[in-house]
This record gives sequence, structure tokens and C-alpha cells, in this order.
Amino acid sequence: MIRIGLYGYGNIARGVECAAAQNADLTIAAVFTRRDPATVTTQGAPVYRVDDVLAHRDEIDVLVMCGGSATDLPQQTPQMAEYFNVVDTFDTHKRIPEHFANVDTAAKRGGKTAVISVGWDPGLFSLNRMLGNCFLPDGADYTFWGRGVSQGHSDAVRRIDGVLDARQYTVPVESALQAVRRGEQPELTARQKHTRECYVVAAEGADRARIEREIVTMKNYFDEYDTTVHFITQEELDRDHKGIPHGGTVIRSGRTGRDGENRHEMEFRLRLDSNPEFTACVVACCARAVCRMNAEGQTGCKTIFDIPPAYLSPLSGEELRAKML
Amino acid sequence: MIRIGLYGYGNIARGVECAAAQNADLTIAAVFTRRDPATVTTQGAPVYRVDDVLAHRDEIDVLVMCGGSATDLPQQTPQMAEYFNVVDTFDTHKRIPEHFANVDTAAKRGGKTAVISVGWDPGLFSLNRMLGNCFLPDGADYTFWGRGVSQGHSDAVRRIDGVLDARQYTVPVESALQAVRRGEQPELTARQKHTRECYVVAAEGADRARIEREIVTMKNYFDEYDTTVHFITQEELDRDHKGIPHGGTVIRSGRTGRDGENRHEMEFRLRLDSNPEFTACVVACCARAVCRMNAEGQTGCKTIFDIPPAYLSPLSGEELRAKML
Repeated sequence: MIRIGLYGYGNIARGVECAAAQNADLTIAAVFTRRDPATVTTQGAPVYRVDDVLAHRDEIDVLVMCGGSATDLPQQTPQMAEYFNVVDTFDTHKRIPEHFANVDTAAKRGGKTAVISVGWDPGLFSLNRMLGNCFLPDGADYTFWGRGVSQGHSDAVRRIDGVLDARQYTVPVESALQAVRRGEQPELTARQKHTRECYVVAAEGADRARIEREIVTMKNYFDEYDTTVHFITQEELDRDHKGIPHGGTVIRSGRTGRDGENRHEMEFRLRLDSNPEFTACVVACCARAVCRMNAEGQTGCKTIFDIPPAYLSPLSGEELRAKML
Repeated sequence: MIRIGLYGYGNIARGVECAAAQNADLTIAAVFTRRDPATVTTQGAPVYRVDDVLAHRDEIDVLVMCGGSATDLPQQTPQMAEYFNVVDTFDTHKRIPEHFANVDTAAKRGGKTAVISVGWDPGLFSLNRMLGNCFLPDGADYTFWGRGVSQGHSDAVRRIDGVLDARQYTVPVESALQAVRRGEQPELTARQKHTRECYVVAAEGADRARIEREIVTMKNYFDEYDTTVHFITQEELDRDHKGIPHGGTVIRSGRTGRDGENRHEMEFRLRLDSNPEFTACVVACCARAVCRMNAEGQTGCKTIFDIPPAYLSPLSGEELRAKML
């Protein structure tokens, strides 16, 4: 039985609890929180203060870091990696090399194993981009996200004066996706790949035309996209937009043959009702892998690229070959 | 530079030559053939008799076994695995455990590393089936093949009396594929998943009605499918059906959440103009991986499940993290 500790108790942590319930070899041994433990109700695991985490070293095989990428994980993962095998979902692509170096140093100091930046992007999408580049070196990469909720864009809309609540969906442009699938290798701008849909609850008497204008012209978030804004009531938002669906498509389009005469498309697609729950399923399997790698003496920081796929599975090599190959 | 030997010189071997031309770290060092070497023209590599292969041990880092799965590979891969790092495309799913054991014994005896059953199915499809089962343990698997040429079914049609030549396409049933993509988890019979299309060149005066009847009722090959038969001329077959396209789709459809309330679909799809050339691209990257694993002392028989994905790539871990994660 692999004993998982959850460091933080948000959506990902709750998803890991659900994933552990579906995997006979995984159990949640403890939850660590910055809140008052008495106020936190888990699916059964005991709750402790984050400050007490080191006192529970012997009860935990792997610590899943469930904080945010902006400020939590850059601090917390290196701190914990010296004392625990850890898994995190760090998703600020640009800062991954720096985060990797910090976690690697800490993990090696403690003889522990860490896997960072797992989930689906970074994670499974990265794996598919990488495999596509290996198998089809003469080719082009495409990533489409959605249809799904972007938390960052939803937050940006909520910060506008007069907005009470908002939900933003990122939507791939179907005609662009089809052109890529047909092997046309188009060059696509941001606007040609995705549109953005906003569902906005405005305060009574707020100037809706101004809110809409502020959204569609917002630098870095919306100005490079075709954005539609729908004003709805809080009741409608709560009823129709409470889920956190997401997904997307990674395509590698490439050529082979003596004169590049043959075209090929590799496509990986996710359609997820719950972004955090699926992410947590990937995290849970990586927790299993990290324990195996540590038991073999493979210490330091790893990514999805370093994990032999069999280590993610509860099945033996023999079972995998007989049933899955 | 990784020096590849090709054992056999058919479609896969020619594809590996093309793949090596696209990868700066791979070179074809030698081709071994059962034919008279003087009659074989390669893209530049020297040609030797298969019987002389052991004399070239020092010139080769990894031997790619390019024979057929029916009779060649079960013999040849274990024979060569004692003396060379090897890669093969053994694709008789049921016999993989037995083949694995034979190759493992030989490779361990010689301190060599082998990777068997690579390509796309078995290979990338296996990897995606396995990952789907890891991440979504409460779910169902679907594999659709095509639209593509099935060599085995084409051969079966050619054996019918009065048939001069034939090409068989396996075609997924689009409505079934869409139902799976929508997360309906349907139970599907063979007939509901695929149809079969045959293009047949009949001898002059042959009884076409009898040929068609023999095809559509053929046990194990066609009787469980809806099959259409088109009679065409040899010229039409050569003009319109000379390619070897293939592909397919692996879907894992599963549920998460405290009450299984959230549905997810993971899909991996290939559309290939040339089945052997894409297979060869995967083989070439596995040749790279097998050399790395051997250099690390990981000897014996491996499958795609055992290869850390980074080992397939010519890029360093640092480059992969910066560019692909």
C-alpha cells in the first residue's frame, strides 16, 4: 500500500482522494492544511497543520503538493523534496527549468525522488508533443485547448469594475483543427486557433457596453482573440456553468519517405468533465511511479519524460504484456 | 552516432533507412539479407549475407529485425539477441509473452538489451491503452483500426480461386466512433465497429458472384463484418490502391468523482499515408533507446512500457524540459 500525504486541500487534493478510492494500492494517509484542521473535512484521512508535516515523515511514502503554481509550489516543492518523495503540478512552462533545478538539489540532498509538472498540460500533452517530435522529426506541432474553462481568464474578467462573477471558456476553432487533421500544416495565429466565450454577471446598473469593451480589448488575455460576451444572472451562472470541464488536442503533422512524399498525423485528445479530477488521476499514478523510482535508487527531480510508463501502472510487467501490449 | 544494422530488407527496413536520414545521430551501418547481396540496392549501406552477421558485430550498435512475425521473428530475434542489442516489430499479440521470454533469456545471456513489439499496434496503441487504464481505472477501452490496408485480409482474398490481385481496407464505423467519443461507453460487436472494403481483380471469365460470396462468408476474416466487394482492373488497382495507408484510434472512456459523476475521454489517433514508414520511425527511436538502456546496464528484454520516453529522443533532458514540457 502506497501512503499518500496531501499538502494543501483544494480541488486537486480532493481529486487525488477520489483517485485513491479507485486504486487498491493507494491510500490517503494524511492531509496537511494552512487552515485550522478542525474546519477541514476529508473523505477519511486525518488532518494536520502544514507546520507539523515533518513529524509525520514515517507515515507517508509520497507527498502530493496541491498548492498553486504562482507562489505556493516554487517555495513548497523544493522545501518538501528534501524530506519526502514528492509530486507536483507546477504549470508555469517558462519557469520549469528553474523549478526543476531547485527541486533536484533538494531531493538529491535528502535521497528522495520528485516528479514535477505532471497532469495533462504540462504532462500528457508534453509527452505527446515529445513523442511526435521523435517519430516525425520533419513536421509541425499544434496544440488546441478546450472547449474548457480557463481559470486565469475567468479571474481577469472578475477583476473588471462592475463584474460580480464570470466564467471564461477557451474554444478551439473547428475549421483550423480540421485543416491540421487533413495534414495541411497551416500557419495559424492565436486568433485563428481559439475563440473565447465569456459568461458575465454584471452588477445592477453597471455599464454593460463598457464591461464588454474592457473584456474584448484586454491585453494579453483577450485582445488577440475573437471574444464573445454574454451577460447572464448569477442563478444562470451557478446552474449552467458550475463545472470545470476542459481538454484539448495535440497534433504532430509530419512527413516521411525519400522525398517526404508520405504524410502522417499523430493526435492526442482529451475531453474532461472535470479538469482537476483528471489531473489528480495522473498525479496519483505519478505518486506510484515516484515511490518505485525511489526504491530503485533513482533520486533527484524527474518529469513525465523520465518515467518508464510501466511504473505508472498497478499491474506487473507480465500482466501488462499479456493484457495491454 | 548510433550504428544500425538491418536484418532483412523489406518495407520496414527501407522505412528505417528513411528515418535514419531524418535523424542526425542515426546511421545505417549494414544490411543483412537472405538474397544475393549483389542483387540488393540500398540507400548507401553495405549489404552482407545474413549468415555473415556475427562477423560484423563490432560495426553495429543495434540490429533492427525486419522479418515477419509469423515465422521469421520468433526464430531470429532470440538468435540475434544474444549477440546484438535488437529491436523488433513482433505483432502476434497472443504470442508476445512466449516471445518475450525467449528474447529475454538470450539477451541476458549476452549482456544485451532487446525491445520487442514496437511500432504502432503493438507499440503506441499499447502505450495509450495502458495509460488510459492507469489514469481512468473505472472505464472502457476501444480500439478502431483504419481506414487502412490490412495485409492479412488482402492476402486471404488473393488466395481465392479466380482472384488475380486484391486490396482490403479496414474501415471504422463512424457512428460507433462518435458514440464512444461522446462517452456513451457502448458495447460493440465486431460488425458494429468496422466494415471491410475489398478491391478485387478477377481473372477473365471468373465467376464474380462466387468470388464475392467466398469473400463475404470467409470464416475469421469476413463473416463477422459487413463487407463490400468492388471488381476493378489491374490498372485501376495499381493506380488507385498502391499505397499502404493505415491508422486508427484508441479511446479510453472513464469516470471519476465520489459517485462517478464526471466523464472523461482520452483519445489517441493516427492517420498514416505509409504504415511501414511510420512503423519504422518508431523502430528507429527505439533503436536509440535500446542503446542507451544497454549503456546503463539495463539488459534483457523490454517493451514500450519499460522505456523512459526521454530515451527515445535525440534531445537532452534539459532541452526536453525547456522545449517540450
